[in-house]
Amino acid sequence: MKKLGIRGRDVRIGVIGLGGRGIGQMQTLLSMPDVKAAIVCDDWEDRAEKGADIAEKAQGFRPAATRDAADVLARDDIEGVAIFTSWQTHIPLAIEALRAGKYPSLEVGGATSVDQLWTMVRTSEDTGIPVMLLENCCYDAREMALLRMVRMGLFGELVHCGGGYCHDLREEIGLGDRTHHYRQDNFLHRNGELYPTHDLGPIAKYLDIGRGNAILSISSTASKSRGLSAWLAEHRPDIAGAHVCQGDVVDSVLRCANGETIHLVHDCTLPRPYSRAGLIQGTKGIWQEDGAHIYLEGISPGRKKNDWTERWEPEGKYLKRYEHPLWRKYREFGLRGGHGGMDYLVLRAWIESLQNATPPPIDVYDTATWMAVTCLSEQSVALGGVPVPMPDFTDGRWMTRKNEDLGQYSL
Amino acid sequence: MKKLGIRGRDVRIGVIGLGGRGIGQMQTLLSMPDVKAAIVCDDWEDRAEKGADIAEKAQGFRPAATRDAADVLARDDIEGVAIFTSWQTHIPLAIEALRAGKYPSLEVGGATSVDQLWTMVRTSEDTGIPVMLLENCCYDAREMALLRMVRMGLFGELVHCGGGYCHDLREEIGLGDRTHHYRQDNFLHRNGELYPTHDLGPIAKYLDIGRGNAILSISSTASKSRGLSAWLAEHRPDIAGAHVCQGDVVDSVLRCANGETIHLVHDCTLPRPYSRAGLIQGTKGIWQEDGAHIYLEGISPGRKKNDWTERWEPEGKYLKRYEHPLWRKYREFGLRGGHGGMDYLVLRAWIESLQNATPPPIDVYDTATWMAVTCLSEQSVALGGVPVPMPDFTDGRWMTRKNEDLGQYSL
Repeated sequence: MKKLGIRGRDVRIGVIGLGGRGIGQMQTLLSMPDVKAAIVCDDWEDRAEKGADIAEKAQGFRPAATRDAADVLARDDIEGVAIFTSWQTHIPLAIEALRAGKYPSLEVGGATSVDQLWTMVRTSEDTGIPVMLLENCCYDAREMALLRMVRMGLFGELVHCGGGYCHDLREEIGLGDRTHHYRQDNFLHRNGELYPTHDLGPIAKYLDIGRGNAILSISSTASKSRGLSAWLAEHRPDIAGAHVCQGDVVDSVLRCANGETIHLVHDCTLPRPYSRAGLIQGTKGIWQEDGAHIYLEGISPGRKKNDWTERWEPEGKYLKRYEHPLWRKYREFGLRGGHGGMDYLVLRAWIESLQNATPPPIDVYDTATWMAVTCLSEQSVALGGVPVPMPDFTDGRWMTRKNEDLGQYSL
Repeated sequence: MKKLGIRGRDVRIGVIGLGGRGIGQMQTLLSMPDVKAAIVCDDWEDRAEKGADIAEKAQGFRPAATRDAADVLARDDIEGVAIFTSWQTHIPLAIEALRAGKYPSLEVGGATSVDQLWTMVRTSEDTGIPVMLLENCCYDAREMALLRMVRMGLFGELVHCGGGYCHDLREEIGLGDRTHHYRQDNFLHRNGELYPTHDLGPIAKYLDIGRGNAILSISSTASKSRGLSAWLAEHRPDIAGAHVCQGDVVDSVLRCANGETIHLVHDCTLPRPYSRAGLIQGTKGIWQEDGAHIYLEGISPGRKKNDWTERWEPEGKYLKRYEHPLWRKYREFGLRGGHGGMDYLVLRAWIESLQNATPPPIDVYDTATWMAVTCLSEQSVALGGVPVPMPDFTDGRWMTRKNEDLGQYSL
């Protein structure tokens, strides 16, 4: 691991997509003294200009501003492109970036076809340029501590994991036509696991997916759609008649080559507190996000003479004890960026991969596999829950590929 | 609702199956002053005799004891038969009881074929004699309060429910060949949702299954099997080589006619605290057993001006406020029987149905549908998660059948 806050060689990047998320991520990127934005881009001119204003303030010079992504890719003076656009444009833009010789990083989202993922993988292989999905939740303190515990064997052999994106987004979706938010189009027209990577990303790391293990199939089932329609009826009478295709709760079950199963939930249109619904189960223990508790056989109370009832312990003690070294250093360095600090870490991992020409911790095969869940789940829902196969984007190399250490990237 | 502890006409029953559970349930039955056991039965002579001893102590006279269930069914002096045998014998014995003119009640478990369920349904229809599954969890204080809240509309329109049988039974299963426990055979040879009714029973009541709604299909996926083998290797080296077919975690997703989905988990061979993993989600709120919390829109904190974060509340206040009247009376009467009192209530419901010739609250259609999940899930697991159809045991009458009030039976 590198020293704290070490400054690498300067890198110049382009930034595409300057909605709320894009602005926030660009600010985090430009808080790094070795990162400069040479050009910024958004379909909406006001956003592009506002992005240039913000970048100018952060880095001392004004980047070019454009509405055309081709202007970004045509620049000779940038090495990487950070893509924060609508879900359905992430992959086409990443492919164009690769073809233009730039190293793309993508904000999270799901794919719309397996074909576009293959094109991205082949273009990356042909050009020798990596792709990195900016899955921030892989870098959260909790998930990184759990990854350490998994790899130290505290849960024994893993057999099952669960996760979800359980987040009441009715207002964001319901106002999307006014705020240019892509979620509304997706919820009105699609029906599946639209947003799998916040939960699947960390799970894929626990289960060594793409590196000794593989996802083989996915079966998805959608509940009826009521939550968003009810919200629109109350708050948006002007579009209340819109047909909503997305079911309120979509359950998906994935099977892995090594026999593990993964249960994912997509749940964004009902009233509820936020949860990523994490679950790790192995032959020696269990951790569960809902309840924030853990049970480790032989360590936690119970299952002993005269005290047979297995009892949960709060997770806090374990998350502290097994905190990832990267997070320990990060706390000294000072947390920054959004979502409790994890945004900065994942962006920094991309920047260091770019500076040092090292493989990203979340590479093109991870990106393709995780994002494929969306379009595959739509097919499975359409078929009434029939399992559909997950392509092997590694062409069999998953059997021998080695695990990355997320913590190899520093600060 | 009847008065507290009212004594109906005396009923004489036979009891088949006198393992740990059978003895306990018989004792609860015989604690009712209007219930007498005329004959008791177990495959093992020592159990039959011990059962007769216990019954004699409870009711003042010694019942006949036999190893042959046919002896029970041949008795002219009994009206009902309580079946507490191994899972795979519940339905054949219930069918024989119907043919012999006795009203059977069955301890919970799953079916081994759809055909045996149809035979049970048709035999009940032909004889005009009901069948009642003794699903005690339908009568737990928590589940009955939640049922009230559902029917009062506190969760809005329901869209999704979840449940599980998450219970570390490695020791019970691993010692089964020494204790004559049927679970061992089932876990060694089968792979599916072996024990669905503790979680599905209450959910079926929330969702009006068989009474305005129906389960249409089930898709099940099993994880690899590691927990029981690891336990056997450590504790039972003599049988450690046994091949275990049952996956550690089996996820099932059921689709309902009215568009709701149900997610069930079977999880009995890994170290973990007990949970039935309940979940109720509607357009106005959510209740979740793991975490023991609830969120009701407009009632719970959050989602208001200046306080936008939806926050869980502990479930306790609501379970108390909406306690079912039956439970309020039951607390005055004095709780009795196993599992916190719910065993007594479900047994009493059967006895009163028998005394008064009223339909049972969990009838032959409920029983067949809930138990069918087991054999259907085995088929789906064998097919890699392909959804399989749930038969309509009501021949279409589910569209117009009215809901039972679980509380119509008293004490």
